[in-house]
Amino acid sequence: MELLKEKILQKAHIKSDNILRVDSFLNHQMDIKLFNEIGKEFFRLFSDCDINKILTIEPYGTGIACIAAQYFGVPVVVAKRGEQLYISGDVYTTKVRSVARDTSYDIAVAKKFLHRDDRLLVLDDILSGGNDLQGLLDIIQTSGATLKGVGIVIEKAFSGGGKRIRDTGIRVESLAIIESMDKINGIKFKEE
Amino acid sequence: MELLKEKILQKAHIKSDNILRVDSFLNHQMDIKLFNEIGKEFFRLFSDCDINKILTIEPYGTGIACIAAQYFGVPVVVAKRGEQLYISGDVYTTKVRSVARDTSYDIAVAKKFLHRDDRLLVLDDILSGGNDLQGLLDIIQTSGATLKGVGIVIEKAFSGGGKRIRDTGIRVESLAIIESMDKINGIKFKEE
Repeated sequence: MELLKEKILQKAHIKSDNILRVDSFLNHQMDIKLFNEIGKEFFRLFSDCDINKILTIEPYGTGIACIAAQYFGVPVVVAKRGEQLYISGDVYTTKVRSVARDTSYDIAVAKKFLHRDDRLLVLDDILSGGNDLQGLLDIIQTSGATLKGVGIVIEKAFSGGGKRIRDTGIRVESLAIIESMDKINGIKFKEE
Repeated sequence: MELLKEKILQKAHIKSDNILRVDSFLNHQMDIKLFNEIGKEFFRLFSDCDINKILTIEPYGTGIACIAAQYFGVPVVVAKRGEQLYISGDVYTTKVRSVARDTSYDIAVAKKFLHRDDRLLVLDDILSGGNDLQGLLDIIQTSGATLKGVGIVIEKAFSGGGKRIRDTGIRVESLAIIESMDKINGIKFKEE
């Protein structure tokens, strides 16, 4: 998606060889006009998949998922992370390892919001090592719902999560795929 | 807002005299058609305020703020809560007391996203005791930005936060104001 790649080149900041700051347009300040174009692009990619629900994970997937959901005309379910104080009743949970923080946390979705006849699109902002995403996929599998595909705004291909998940046969569509980045050479996108 | 009140009466669940579960349409599963109507209503209320940015707090304000921001044509800034691992550079922070969890946490906004000439609308999903909201207002005051108003989806008037903040002269518009609730008598809204 050219508009997104231009925005990344203009506004993203390489903090280290592994960390890309996108806080000026994606996950701290949110450029809603860009979000609308992202939402339309996800709809273009997945409009033939008969999606009835979008699943994402807090906190950073929520905005993208809500904007995209308007084009699909479906509700969003936001998986919770960490303590589960405000989830009542039965939940699907799984443990996820955070590489950045060298710790683990739980993610959870109330069972009443995932059903066997659901046809899910998973959306998230960033795909790196894929641990969060794998956690969501584990929850979907346990619930018996059907995963129709995964939409990602920015994939860091060099972190390997996208390849690992595609190798299991899951359709992953990333709107910008970064093949390499460093402070000297900058950001190199995967050729389409 | 009648549509919202009907949804609350149909779908919200009084867990105790103080806790209202709205997880089936507002903060775990999100009813995006309802969010659109909420966004339009906030725009109707604040369209004459020359808003240039919406400020909210993660995780539950994000979806509402992103949907509403489309009508205003402005970006969203999402205040972060807890650890600040992914915020770079200078931040405005303040400490907020969580009554529900009997603990405190930090909320933070990167200084580069709040300026003296900003004209802010603060949006959030629920207003109870008002501690989160007060934290946001403290950050705005420190930044020197102008607060044009506060929009809340559901206010629990009996918790007192709304009155306390309105008493300081701030305009707070809540789309549904619950005056009382308990399992026997159900939910009573404030008369308009």
